[in-house]
Amino acid sequence: MPHIPVSPTTPGIRGLFDFRPETGAALKKLAHVLLHGESPLTKGERELIATFVSHGNGCKFCTMSHAAAARFHYGADSDVVDAVVYRNDRSGVSELMSVLLDIAERVRIGGRNVSDELVAKARALGAVDRHIHDTVLIAAAFCMFNRYVDGLRALTPEKFEDYVPMGERMATLGYSFEVPDATR
Amino acid sequence: MPHIPVSPTTPGIRGLFDFRPETGAALKKLAHVLLHGESPLTKGERELIATFVSHGNGCKFCTMSHAAAARFHYGADSDVVDAVVYRNDRSGVSELMSVLLDIAERVRIGGRNVSDELVAKARALGAVDRHIHDTVLIAAAFCMFNRYVDGLRALTPEKFEDYVPMGERMATLGYSFEVPDATR
Repeated sequence: MPHIPVSPTTPGIRGLFDFRPETGAALKKLAHVLLHGESPLTKGERELIATFVSHGNGCKFCTMSHAAAARFHYGADSDVVDAVVYRNDRSGVSELMSVLLDIAERVRIGGRNVSDELVAKARALGAVDRHIHDTVLIAAAFCMFNRYVDGLRALTPEKFEDYVPMGERMATLGYSFEVPDATR
Repeated sequence: MPHIPVSPTTPGIRGLFDFRPETGAALKKLAHVLLHGESPLTKGERELIATFVSHGNGCKFCTMSHAAAARFHYGADSDVVDAVVYRNDRSGVSELMSVLLDIAERVRIGGRNVSDELVAKARALGAVDRHIHDTVLIAAAFCMFNRYVDGLRALTPEKFEDYVPMGERMATLGYSFEVPDATR
């Protein structure tokens, strides 16, 4: 049971956004700019980093929902999402993306773990400043979102199928919008 | 040296906000609503939770700057900030605040550590839903801010004195504003 009252029809972080709309608005805006705004990383790559970090933090709701969004973006190549997230198998992603996932994992464990060597390795593979910035901020932001969801024990649907329409909505509409009650 | 280019006159997280103003705007808004908006927790209590979490995460910039803001709020009682943050001495805070600090520490370690028992203990001491919500979100948000600052190795002033005017500005103006260059 959640630690604060949330509507049973509003699973996950949206129940928390509804509980306090003022912080909800800022958090939705952040997620939208970060995952749907302009970036050298594709939306699929950004959702993959978000999912990978959420799984590392053991947050089922964020892992399941962002995995669904990432799979939608990757389309025919969606197996790569499950390979990276659940088996740490990097064979389906670029060398650069693999190093960015390593940076995200260091951030997840603690910000001071991101070494000059690792950043230099990413740059040698073509990363520009924004690759580094966006990877670090996505990883950091999911260390917040995961703790917000699990720290208040937000409602977490059990079934894989529940996350498919959620992921499609996240992948297509993004995060900075109101979800009508009937389609939550 | 920071992992991305930031102005030498813009220490800490503000250099990162300037690097990407779109995410900077959402992050400043979040910090402002969370630490300066309406809450059953005083601004001092919220800054104290932010400082306590930042120290736990080993983020010097966030610890020093938010400690300065918290000391400003606590005024004549500012010793309580250093007691809680650096010595985990809770003798200067209420029993409820001590339990909320315990909840914040659980969130810092990982969201799933917030137990029903601990939330019940806070409620027995007078906590309402918003005490629980705000404590969890402040702790979660600083798990992001700390990782953003340290993951990109933002410029971190060394001297205690550098943080005093910064803390006063944070305590009085809050976070959702532009700092003129000359006073950064």
